[in-house]
Amino acid sequence: MPGHADALLTQLRRAVGECNVLTDPAAMEGFLADWTGRYRGQADAVVRPRTTEEVSRVVGECASVGARICVQGGNTGLVGGSVPPPRDDTGQPVIVLSTARMTDIDEVDAVGRCVGAQAGATVDAIDGRAADAGLAFPIDLASRESATAGGVVSTNAGGIRMIRRGNTRSQVLGIEAVLADGRILRRWTSLVKDNVGYDLPALLAGSEGTLAVITRVLFKLVVPPSAATVAVAAVEHVEDAIALIGAASSRGLTVEAAELMTEAGIELVHEHGQRRPTATPAPFYVLLEVSGVGDIETTMAELLDGTGGLVDAVLEPAPARALWGARESHTETIARSSTTPVVKLDISVPIRALPETFAELAAVGTTSDFPCRPILFGHVGDGNIHVNLLDVPEEHAGTVTDRVFGIVAANGGSISAEHGIGRAKTAWTHLGRSDVDLDTMRAVKAAFDPQGLLNPGVIFGLPAP
Amino acid sequence: MPGHADALLTQLRRAVGECNVLTDPAAMEGFLADWTGRYRGQADAVVRPRTTEEVSRVVGECASVGARICVQGGNTGLVGGSVPPPRDDTGQPVIVLSTARMTDIDEVDAVGRCVGAQAGATVDAIDGRAADAGLAFPIDLASRESATAGGVVSTNAGGIRMIRRGNTRSQVLGIEAVLADGRILRRWTSLVKDNVGYDLPALLAGSEGTLAVITRVLFKLVVPPSAATVAVAAVEHVEDAIALIGAASSRGLTVEAAELMTEAGIELVHEHGQRRPTATPAPFYVLLEVSGVGDIETTMAELLDGTGGLVDAVLEPAPARALWGARESHTETIARSSTTPVVKLDISVPIRALPETFAELAAVGTTSDFPCRPILFGHVGDGNIHVNLLDVPEEHAGTVTDRVFGIVAANGGSISAEHGIGRAKTAWTHLGRSDVDLDTMRAVKAAFDPQGLLNPGVIFGLPAP
Repeated sequence: MPGHADALLTQLRRAVGECNVLTDPAAMEGFLADWTGRYRGQADAVVRPRTTEEVSRVVGECASVGARICVQGGNTGLVGGSVPPPRDDTGQPVIVLSTARMTDIDEVDAVGRCVGAQAGATVDAIDGRAADAGLAFPIDLASRESATAGGVVSTNAGGIRMIRRGNTRSQVLGIEAVLADGRILRRWTSLVKDNVGYDLPALLAGSEGTLAVITRVLFKLVVPPSAATVAVAAVEHVEDAIALIGAASSRGLTVEAAELMTEAGIELVHEHGQRRPTATPAPFYVLLEVSGVGDIETTMAELLDGTGGLVDAVLEPAPARALWGARESHTETIARSSTTPVVKLDISVPIRALPETFAELAAVGTTSDFPCRPILFGHVGDGNIHVNLLDVPEEHAGTVTDRVFGIVAANGGSISAEHGIGRAKTAWTHLGRSDVDLDTMRAVKAAFDPQGLLNPGVIFGLPAP
Repeated sequence: MPGHADALLTQLRRAVGECNVLTDPAAMEGFLADWTGRYRGQADAVVRPRTTEEVSRVVGECASVGARICVQGGNTGLVGGSVPPPRDDTGQPVIVLSTARMTDIDEVDAVGRCVGAQAGATVDAIDGRAADAGLAFPIDLASRESATAGGVVSTNAGGIRMIRRGNTRSQVLGIEAVLADGRILRRWTSLVKDNVGYDLPALLAGSEGTLAVITRVLFKLVVPPSAATVAVAAVEHVEDAIALIGAASSRGLTVEAAELMTEAGIELVHEHGQRRPTATPAPFYVLLEVSGVGDIETTMAELLDGTGGLVDAVLEPAPARALWGARESHTETIARSSTTPVVKLDISVPIRALPETFAELAAVGTTSDFPCRPILFGHVGDGNIHVNLLDVPEEHAGTVTDRVFGIVAANGGSISAEHGIGRAKTAWTHLGRSDVDLDTMRAVKAAFDPQGLLNPGVIFGLPAP
C-alpha cells in the first residue's frame, strides 16, 4: 500500500471512527466478492459511514488524494458492479464504501404518500414501514431482504412489480447524494411536478454509482390493491402467456405481476424441494397476479378457461406464497446447481419478439460444443428474460455471452434489461449504444467525476493497462 | 449582422433550401415573440429544416462559427423559452431553428404500444394517429393543436392526464437528438427495460433545449378507458375537492383527470361565453374525470352525495366537452382579459399545503398596493396551481412574482411545476435548487454544449453584460 494510503486511512478513521474502517483481510473478505462468486476485487479498506455527512467527509478525503471509491449496498448485484476491480493499475488507494450502517427510515408521509430512507435500508424494511401506514413500497424483487434503497436506485431496478408500477427511477421523488468532490447534492420534496432544470435524480438512477454516492432517497409509496389473486397457467407456447396477460387487461383486471418460467426451471426448483405449481407439466408456466374490483377470482377463472394452449392452471388468493416460491427460488437454486459460476444475463426484447427469442435462447444449450444448460425465466410483461447458463466452462463464458447477445441484438433487444452493466458487460455496450451515445455518457461521467474516482471500470470498463 | 453571419446563412440555405431560411423581418415576426406577448427576441434568421439530417447540418454549421440556436416548436410555451433573447451581447449570429416542417408521424406499433414522431408533430396529430389504432397519446393539454412532440418533451409537460399517466418524461421510450456539435444521438427501441448506462432521454426531457435539439421521439401509447364520466362539483373548500379525489380512488375508480377552478375563473370564462358548469355558484369547482368497470355513473353520483361542502354538482359521460370547455378556455380568456401582459406562474406544493397556499395566493390580489387580479386554477391532484395575475403594471411584475414565489417556497413548493424556467424564472431558481445543484446542472450543460450555443439564457440566465 503506498504511503499516502496510510495517511488516507488515518483521515477516514477520523471521519467514521476506528472500528468502521476495516483493513483486516478476513473482515474485508465478504465485501470483496460478489454474490455470484464470479467477481472478486481488492481494496485497501472497507469504510462504513453512518450519515450523509460522514459519506461527504470520506469522499472528500478520497478526492484529495485521488483514491478510488467502490460503493456497496446489499451486494446482491449480478454484474460485478458492487465490488472493486480485481486490481488497480493506477497505484491509487481503493476503498469500498459500504452503506450497511445507513439504515434509517423516516416516518411515512401518509398524505404525500412517500417515505425517506437512507441508502442502506433494505427493500423489505422500507416496505414494512410503508405497510404500517397502509401503503406499499412500489419496488419488489426476490432479493428484498438484502437489496438496499441505494442499490435499487443506482441500478434502476425493475423487479416483479414493474409491469404495474414502473421502474425504480420513476419512484424517486427526492435524492441526497455526495458528489465526487465530497459536496452534498440534495433535492428533497414530495412534489410530483417540479420542472426546475435537469432531472438529476433521474440521471443518478441507473448510473450504477459512477456519478455520485447516493446517501438517501425519498420514494413514492402506493396504495396496495384491496384484493388480488394469483394464477399459474401451464401453457404450450410463450404466445399463450402473452395473450393471457392482454386478456386480463382487456377484462378490466389490473396486472400486478406477470412472470414466465420454463419446464426446465420448474423441474430444477422442484428437485430442490419446491412444490410444482400445477399437477400437469407444460413447456411454459406463467404466473399472473391480478387485482380489481368485483369477483376477480371468477373473472380470472373464465380467462383461464379461454386461454389457448392451456395445459393446467391453479388459482389462489394473494399472496399465494407457494406459487410465488417456485418463481422466487429460481435464482438461488440455479446458483447451487451449476458446476461452474453461472453465466447470468438479463436481456429484454420487444414483446412481439419474445417467442422467437425464447426459442433461440433455449437452443443455445443444444448447439454449443461445450456443456451449457440454459434456464430462462423472467418478467414476461416487460419483455425481460433472465438468461442463466449453467455448467459453462469458465473459458467459454465470453463465447456463450457473445452468442446470447448476438441473438438479443438480432431481435432488437437490450443486453441489460434491469441488472445494469457493472463490470460484467462493459465489452458489449456497443451492441445497444452508438459511439455518439457512449461518448455523451463519458462526457457526463467526466462532468460529475473528472478524476474518475467513483466505481472505476463500471459501465465504461477500465482503461487498457 | 457580422460578416460571418452572411457566410453562415449561405451554408444554412445549402442545408435546408433557400425558402426555408427566413430573414425578412415580417416573415420572422411570428417566430420572435412568444404566445403571452411578454417575451420578444432578435435573430438573424429563422431556419426550418425538414429532417434530422438537416438539423444536424444546421447545428454543425452554427457550431463551426459559434452561432446561437434557439429551438422553437409550437411556440406555446409560457416562460419565454421558445424565443431568442432580446439581444445577444456576444456579437455572434443567432438563429431560430423551427421544427414546423418536421411533422412526420410513423405507423403505430399496436403490439409494442408506441409511435415515433418528428419533433414538430402536434400532440393532437399524434393522438389522432394513436386513436386510429385504438390507442391514445398519454399526454394531453389545452394547447394540443399547437404544442409539439419536441416541445412537450423538452419541457417535460404535465397536462391534464398526468395524474393518471405520469409526466412526459415517463412516456419517452426512445429519442433522436442533434448534439451541439451536430452529431446525432439516437436511442430507438420499444423496450421498457434497457439499463445500459445513463438514461440520456430522461435527461433531455425537461432540459428545455439547452442540451441538444430533439428531432424525433418514440412515445408510449396507452389503452384509453372503455368508459369514463366527468363530474364537476361546486364546493366550499379546497379540502372538499381533495377529499373527493381520494374517495374516488378508494371506491376503485380510476382518476383520469382532476382540475380545480375558482369562482373568479368561472365567472370570467362565463362572461366570455362559456356555460357555467353548475347552476349554483361556489368558491371552488373541481372537475373529475373517472373511469372504471361497472356502473361508474352511479358510483360517482354516490360519491358526490357524500362529499363535504358540496354546493352543486353535474355529471356527464366523457368527453363532456362543455364541462371541459369551462376549464380549457381559462388560459385564452385570461390572456384577453388583462390590461397588461399576464404574470403567469405555475407552481406546485405538497397536497397537504394546497388549501393554505390557495388562500395565500388569492390574498395577493387584496394585499397589493397596485392593481392585481389573481385567477387560480390547476391540476389539483398533482398539487399544481396555475397562478395568473391580471392587470399588474409591468413595473411591478417582478415584485408580485417575488411575493408569489415567497408563498410557494414557504409552503415547500416548486416555482415551476410543469412550464419550466425558460427566460422568465431564471432569477428564482435558487428558491428550488441549492448552489451545489445549480453548479451540477451547469457542469452537465458544459458537457453537452461547451460553447453555450443552444438556447442561450434559458434555465441559467444570460451572463451579466
